[in-house]
Amino acid sequence: MTGIISSDGEKRLVLLTGRAHPDLATSVASHLGIDLLPTTTYEFANGEIYTRFGESVRGADTFVLQSHSSPINTWIMEQLLMVDALKRASAKTITVVAPFYGYARQDKKHRGREPISARLMSDLFKTAGADRLMSVDLHAAQIQGFFDGPVDHLWAMPILTEYVRSRVDTSNVTVVSPDAGRIRVAEQWAAKLGGGPLAFVHKTRDIRSPNKTVANRVVGDVEGRSCVLVDDLIDTAGTIAGAVRVLLEAGAKDVIVAATHGVLSDPAVDRLQNCGAREVVITDTLPIAEDRRFPQLTVLSIAPLIARAIREVFDDGSVTSLFDGQA
Amino acid sequence: MTGIISSDGEKRLVLLTGRAHPDLATSVASHLGIDLLPTTTYEFANGEIYTRFGESVRGADTFVLQSHSSPINTWIMEQLLMVDALKRASAKTITVVAPFYGYARQDKKHRGREPISARLMSDLFKTAGADRLMSVDLHAAQIQGFFDGPVDHLWAMPILTEYVRSRVDTSNVTVVSPDAGRIRVAEQWAAKLGGGPLAFVHKTRDIRSPNKTVANRVVGDVEGRSCVLVDDLIDTAGTIAGAVRVLLEAGAKDVIVAATHGVLSDPAVDRLQNCGAREVVITDTLPIAEDRRFPQLTVLSIAPLIARAIREVFDDGSVTSLFDGQA
Amino acid sequence: MTGIISSDGEKRLVLLTGRAHPDLATSVASHLGIDLLPTTTYEFANGEIYTRFGESVRGADTFVLQSHSSPINTWIMEQLLMVDALKRASAKTITVVAPFYGYARQDKKHRGREPISARLMSDLFKTAGADRLMSVDLHAAQIQGFFDGPVDHLWAMPILTEYVRSRVDTSNVTVVSPDAGRIRVAEQWAAKLGGGPLAFVHKTRDIRSPNKTVANRVVGDVEGRSCVLVDDLIDTAGTIAGAVRVLLEAGAKDVIVAATHGVLSDPAVDRLQNCGAREVVITDTLPIAEDRRFPQLTVLSIAPLIARAIREVFDDGSVTSLFDGQA
Amino acid sequence: MTGIISSDGEKRLVLLTGRAHPDLATSVASHLGIDLLPTTTYEFANGEIYTRFGESVRGADTFVLQSHSSPINTWIMEQLLMVDALKRASAKTITVVAPFYGYARQDKKHRGREPISARLMSDLFKTAGADRLMSVDLHAAQIQGFFDGPVDHLWAMPILTEYVRSRVDTSNVTVVSPDAGRIRVAEQWAAKLGGGPLAFVHKTRDIRSPNKTVANRVVGDVEGRSCVLVDDLIDTAGTIAGAVRVLLEAGAKDVIVAATHGVLSDPAVDRLQNCGAREVVITDTLPIAEDRRFPQLTVLSIAPLIARAIREVFDDGSVTSLFDGQA
Amino acid sequence: MTGIISSDGEKRLVLLTGRAHPDLATSVASHLGIDLLPTTTYEFANGEIYTRFGESVRGADTFVLQSHSSPINTWIMEQLLMVDALKRASAKTITVVAPFYGYARQDKKHRGREPISARLMSDLFKTAGADRLMSVDLHAAQIQGFFDGPVDHLWAMPILTEYVRSRVDTSNVTVVSPDAGRIRVAEQWAAKLGGGPLAFVHKTRDIRSPNKTVANRVVGDVEGRSCVLVDDLIDTAGTIAGAVRVLLEAGAKDVIVAATHGVLSDPAVDRLQNCGAREVVITDTLPIAEDRRFPQLTVLSIAPLIARAIREVFDDGSVTSLFDGQA
Amino acid sequence: MTGIISSDGEKRLVLLTGRAHPDLATSVASHLGIDLLPTTTYEFANGEIYTRFGESVRGADTFVLQSHSSPINTWIMEQLLMVDALKRASAKTITVVAPFYGYARQDKKHRGREPISARLMSDLFKTAGADRLMSVDLHAAQIQGFFDGPVDHLWAMPILTEYVRSRVDTSNVTVVSPDAGRIRVAEQWAAKLGGGPLAFVHKTRDIRSPNKTVANRVVGDVEGRSCVLVDDLIDTAGTIAGAVRVLLEAGAKDVIVAATHGVLSDPAVDRLQNCGAREVVITDTLPIAEDRRFPQLTVLSIAPLIARAIREVFDDGSVTSLFDGQA
Repeated sequence: MTGIISSDGEKRLVLLTGRAHPDLATSVASHLGIDLLPTTTYEFANGEIYTRFGESVRGADTFVLQSHSSPINTWIMEQLLMVDALKRASAKTITVVAPFYGYARQDKKHRGREPISARLMSDLFKTAGADRLMSVDLHAAQIQGFFDGPVDHLWAMPILTEYVRSRVDTSNVTVVSPDAGRIRVAEQWAAKLGGGPLAFVHKTRDIRSPNKTVANRVVGDVEGRSCVLVDDLIDTAGTIAGAVRVLLEAGAKDVIVAATHGVLSDPAVDRLQNCGAREVVITDTLPIAEDRRFPQLTVLSIAPLIARAIREVFDDGSVTSLFDGQA
Repeated sequence: MTGIISSDGEKRLVLLTGRAHPDLATSVASHLGIDLLPTTTYEFANGEIYTRFGESVRGADTFVLQSHSSPINTWIMEQLLMVDALKRASAKTITVVAPFYGYARQDKKHRGREPISARLMSDLFKTAGADRLMSVDLHAAQIQGFFDGPVDHLWAMPILTEYVRSRVDTSNVTVVSPDAGRIRVAEQWAAKLGGGPLAFVHKTRDIRSPNKTVANRVVGDVEGRSCVLVDDLIDTAGTIAGAVRVLLEAGAKDVIVAATHGVLSDPAVDRLQNCGAREVVITDTLPIAEDRRFPQLTVLSIAPLIARAIREVFDDGSVTSLFDGQA
Repeated sequence: MTGIISSDGEKRLVLLTGRAHPDLATSVASHLGIDLLPTTTYEFANGEIYTRFGESVRGADTFVLQSHSSPINTWIMEQLLMVDALKRASAKTITVVAPFYGYARQDKKHRGREPISARLMSDLFKTAGADRLMSVDLHAAQIQGFFDGPVDHLWAMPILTEYVRSRVDTSNVTVVSPDAGRIRVAEQWAAKLGGGPLAFVHKTRDIRSPNKTVANRVVGDVEGRSCVLVDDLIDTAGTIAGAVRVLLEAGAKDVIVAATHGVLSDPAVDRLQNCGAREVVITDTLPIAEDRRFPQLTVLSIAPLIARAIREVFDDGSVTSLFDGQA
Repeated sequence: MTGIISSDGEKRLVLLTGRAHPDLATSVASHLGIDLLPTTTYEFANGEIYTRFGESVRGADTFVLQSHSSPINTWIMEQLLMVDALKRASAKTITVVAPFYGYARQDKKHRGREPISARLMSDLFKTAGADRLMSVDLHAAQIQGFFDGPVDHLWAMPILTEYVRSRVDTSNVTVVSPDAGRIRVAEQWAAKLGGGPLAFVHKTRDIRSPNKTVANRVVGDVEGRSCVLVDDLIDTAGTIAGAVRVLLEAGAKDVIVAATHGVLSDPAVDRLQNCGAREVVITDTLPIAEDRRFPQLTVLSIAPLIARAIREVFDDGSVTSLFDGQA
Repeated sequence: MTGIISSDGEKRLVLLTGRAHPDLATSVASHLGIDLLPTTTYEFANGEIYTRFGESVRGADTFVLQSHSSPINTWIMEQLLMVDALKRASAKTITVVAPFYGYARQDKKHRGREPISARLMSDLFKTAGADRLMSVDLHAAQIQGFFDGPVDHLWAMPILTEYVRSRVDTSNVTVVSPDAGRIRVAEQWAAKLGGGPLAFVHKTRDIRSPNKTVANRVVGDVEGRSCVLVDDLIDTAGTIAGAVRVLLEAGAKDVIVAATHGVLSDPAVDRLQNCGAREVVITDTLPIAEDRRFPQLTVLSIAPLIARAIREVFDDGSVTSLFDGQA
Repeated sequence: MTGIISSDGEKRLVLLTGRAHPDLATSVASHLGIDLLPTTTYEFANGEIYTRFGESVRGADTFVLQSHSSPINTWIMEQLLMVDALKRASAKTITVVAPFYGYARQDKKHRGREPISARLMSDLFKTAGADRLMSVDLHAAQIQGFFDGPVDHLWAMPILTEYVRSRVDTSNVTVVSPDAGRIRVAEQWAAKLGGGPLAFVHKTRDIRSPNKTVANRVVGDVEGRSCVLVDDLIDTAGTIAGAVRVLLEAGAKDVIVAATHGVLSDPAVDRLQNCGAREVVITDTLPIAEDRRFPQLTVLSIAPLIARAIREVFDDGSVTSLFDGQA
């Protein structure tokens, strides 16, 4: 055929990061055996962000990692600008890697005239040019459906349960949800820890003490048992710390708190240190400053999981296979 | 100014329906004080649907009501075709009214390589030309975020709780969720019925009888109490009927089942009649054939609520105000 | 360059099918020398369709075959759900293969306030995630323009004419259109069969018998000639069977009916068996149940053509070349 | 309610035109009883078009009329630029009125690797900002489906048939299609003129003179009858003039040519004057220069029809009603 | 006609604001004679913004005012969330009013692999649901073309020139651009101030002192003349303050600095106070804290202009007419 | 894995051209070492353009080159049609190469109710199917932001300055802008030519001759110096020729005119020949007919630059690297 130049198609994987969580990005790059793409990012005097890549990304499969930690709007905007720059620089594909996905808790209108912020974020990334989204333990799995394209939804649960299993006697464990809305997750934990009983904490009129009006109450068996209190994230830790106390008052032997995302907004550190929990286990999807670490805190690394998922995506392998066909 | 014809802008409300649930459409029209727009709809020999409106809809605010009952794919396609015809016939706005929204339970990827069918349905309606969606008690509130536009999400709970309140002694009621995933709804019910205790049914290893492997178990106080077992929909009624039995075995005084949507696929009628429930309360968001009605069944009318919501939309009023600012 | 993993780009072809016409899918796969991708598809009790792929499709060029036979809305919805699942599972490209494309006859507004259903179907597939459409003998070629992307429009005519040529004396053939609207197709057939005369059947006032009001009449020469009555599809066969009779009454020697798509809705089988046609030739773009086959029916296989077209698409070859530059 | 200014919604109709066919625009405006919006349009030295409106169009229902006559690409681009300017000037709705819609004959891929130009034009207008399309006698009715929005498809046939009926003895008329592809239109004409016979002209091997290879031949009864030769448009008139000759040779009493659009590219005027037709009837959807008018030519005005349709659109009336529910 | 409710179309204007510049919003509301819509907006512990409107906005023409001051990413995100909430709450139209439009200076790729941030912002607002954009003195007028819809681009120049005219002897004025890129604006100023000469400051090799390498130099006549140094915005004031000094060194009688937007990032206030300028004139498109005001600073109110423009938009009047047909 | 055909991914580069500037296309092809894809393009009698490719483009990276010379609307439409045909023929990527990009000067609303034509063109190409845009020296760099995708913006300045440097004594050069709006470009030229002084021509009231009202005046040092008068394009040459005269009157030693795009609309050739310029240097981004070439005209070839850029795009190299990281 005339008029045609042919060449082998070759694929290139490029990993970039914004400024939110450089340690995690470096760790993921290290697990992949590559360096992060050199990137210049800073703010102008009035706060506008400037970003530019140091090398060509033309034709590459790019993964831009940014965890939506505080200052959250700045980091989201930075990632949007990086996606726009990738699109205009002719990246072949752009995957937004947001280990913690901001605004996930605003996933519906709780009342009229509110935004659905989690959907808006998906649309903003799509508009900027994202082809795919990768995240860990979205607050609601339905958020996958907010993005018009593939979402690789990673689960930290295997990492967390493997660790917790080494810390408790699974024959005497009760998994506890801190409120009525997340018992499904507790149920999955219970299955992973050997099928023990469930409980949850619930604000109610105490039927046995009709004079006392409203109080937190445990529903389920916890007396004398090791409790694993599970949630997807710990923000100010008010609910979690309250639940630990209620469990101990209800006769729990001890309480381990486990969650994927350590948002740890003030006064979470104080509350967690002093609530009586034996241990608080989280992953490093969000940066945890040194001065916010406390004796009971254990931080597990999420980087190997993210690196493996990126590699599966790049190699057209199966992310689902990382979770026994479940995700 | 030259070259210009002016006229008063006048708004017209048009209500149309497909063939899925004519009784409901007629009832809504009656509450609005209007007739349904004459519409011809039938199937060609090979099953393709034909639809045509008998009068002009140009410039009108149109509401096309179809409940996604069985045969569900046919009724969804019919509604899509009606929306397309409205768009091409110059309707000013098109509101899809789906009292029961099909595929709502497939609102996320439970496992890899599945569709997110509930999002797809939203996109299909958007593509056909829908400007707005109105539905009752979506399986997950996040589905509001699947549609790129306003969603008027109506709650049947006020109708259901008002009725149930007249049927039980609220000082002796426990609200029960049939599984771990919907305790949040039970919590809202409990608040509406006076703040009583919660319970849920849970498949587990019985910690008190370690030899028995897995069984349904009630977590929470039900002995001697009237139980209200709540869910958003009843499909084959397997879970619900099982939960009724477990509650009665656990010493419940009696059990009322309450749900918004009566899908009632076989063998739901058999199961509900024979499970021991004192009463099964649903609304008519879906058609309930005469021969599927049984003595314990109570069907409340959803038409007044839908009619009021349509009127608020048309008058630029507030749908939120119908639910005390909550929806 | 730093920070980059390279790998050879490799392409993978994956063929999937819904439940409408498994025989055709198996036959196409066999011609391609591959297996169909294992897929689980079934209906929930209320008719909602569930689908899931058994292996990863990440990065693959996927072809999802479904013929829009009866129950047509169910099969279209199933294919839409499969496309959505492919998109969310990171397929590289998604080609919808619809050997018979549903709703093709509703390709324009015949009267005001109708949908243009064939355009809607194109938009629905595009929205679900389809990149390309492949079909055989669309009712109107303009439907290619309804899809916003490439359409590979295959022609069954070479298969049909090659067969018919072996069954008639081409020096004594008249090609006949069953109505005024499809004479262009008859003209193409006539050219392929050697350039003989054309005729068509037309409902008219008979100018030679002014008292008889309206009747079907043949326009063109058919007396003593073998007639080949051609159409794109046979649905209820009312028009076709009527045309056969009119031709025989007008002195035709014999009549062969040829069409691409055998929709064969009731009472097509009765009519075709008893109308006097010597032979009825169709392809298997649609499934023909064993009990609907009758002595005069000949079914030609479309699978080799579809397999070759899929292979050309995958290899970046030329589909046009399959038709001598015509399609 | 606080914070709100209310006012009556008032609608304004604005009619604009490009430079392609000012007479038609003026005539439509006159039938509407308004002036055209003052508009400045000219070309820069290098051919780029400049356009600007002399008055505000904010909030108005605008109709921008341009017939796609020669130089066709210039006039289409001019209309696109006017639509863009209307969009950016905050027009409430924008209706593209293209009495003759350019590129309509390229409505499908006749061969591989062609554009589908008629679809592209629809998409260009949509992209520029058009909400609705109005046209007269589209070459293929399927083009309605190319536009993603309402299309008001006007029919000139009532105007043409009313005139022709006054010029012939309808009891002795045969309606003739100039080729095999447009017999459906001839069939509609025949019905309007009283149900007489049909004929068409067809290029074929003459079966009665096997030595003569290919010739135009009439299929159908024309001897001694008044023939009305119908088409949607007359471009170079080669086919039409040839058909007139074949009809006269076949013994037709006389021939009237009728078509909606008089494209009349060279050498159409010569051919039509000299082909022997008694009369050539067209409408003024396209401009007909004075020096291209010849004795047998009759030009009927399309302006009243367009004005009525615009008024129906503006008043939210029914365009379908202009055609007895047919369009 | 049956089945139809009619009502007068009535329009409502609603003005809302985020938290960036409440004084300006209040002032605009006051000029419009209305109150701002009650809105609840705050941040969660981790920085995610929550917003909700206190009253229904259904069917209203809404204007959401937010100036993109520091912290700029937070205020842009807040405005995006408000637009999303308006869309989902069924506002009829949504106009984003950004008196200072953030990221406007990143309106092109200055070098490869940068984002075009100003275009991205336009797309984000469009995606969130904005129908129209209103801004004052965009850094480049081309930004109007970044938004896919109407942009009302207001000019502060009439306000600034009217004031400056009262402060100088226009017969002895030179208008000066601080660099080579904005002389066009200086030219417009010069025309407004009576047509006097232009000058600009330019970094160059001094041709008269070849040993001195690079210095700022005035090109044009300034000796003994009152200079008006004009720019669209003052950020850190480095360039502006430098230009004032160069002008005074070149013999200028005195210098007035005039700009629309007072970004005034540190150390702008220091520089402007001490550079020798007689007066610094800006508008209040951005908030100017009390402690950043200095003796030479004059802040003119932009609120009347914005209020008039909003009213013209709501009344379907002409914004262009506010600027003598120029904008 | 079952059901899968694998093959090496191979990339193909295809270069096509419309009819606007075949010499440039041939030259670019030659520099790439390939032939142009055989393409048939002509006009129907009424001016509609027909185009078809002679070979398959399926899966290829296609570059369709068309310079927007006169008749500009025809050539733009032709390129749009070619893009549509490429999309429908399954090209993998489509790059629009427009060395001169039409309508670039209408890049903003200079006054109300104008289109933003340059944005419209970008949107039209996007709609037709373009993935990427390549152009040379866009009138405003912001036009890059009008296209929703990557834009490769090439600079002719290195080619022009390299040539001009060989024609002047750079120690005695002043770079001159013909008006106030393009001094930034002159500044870049000055830097490239060694950092000499700048000047510009400006219409003003002459402060030294107050009786003379308005005249063109040079601002900056030109006496006795070689002037290089720079612009992005020369259209009718009125401004440029006037500027040459003013420079010579102001004592310039001689004047070289340099511009990227030679639009050269009448009477540009006359003006340029007779204005006194020593040399006029342009590139061949636009075709220059033999009879429009005059003694002082030098035309530099842009083909090597375009060929290198196309090759970098195809090879996933870096276009930025062609300009030392600047573009």
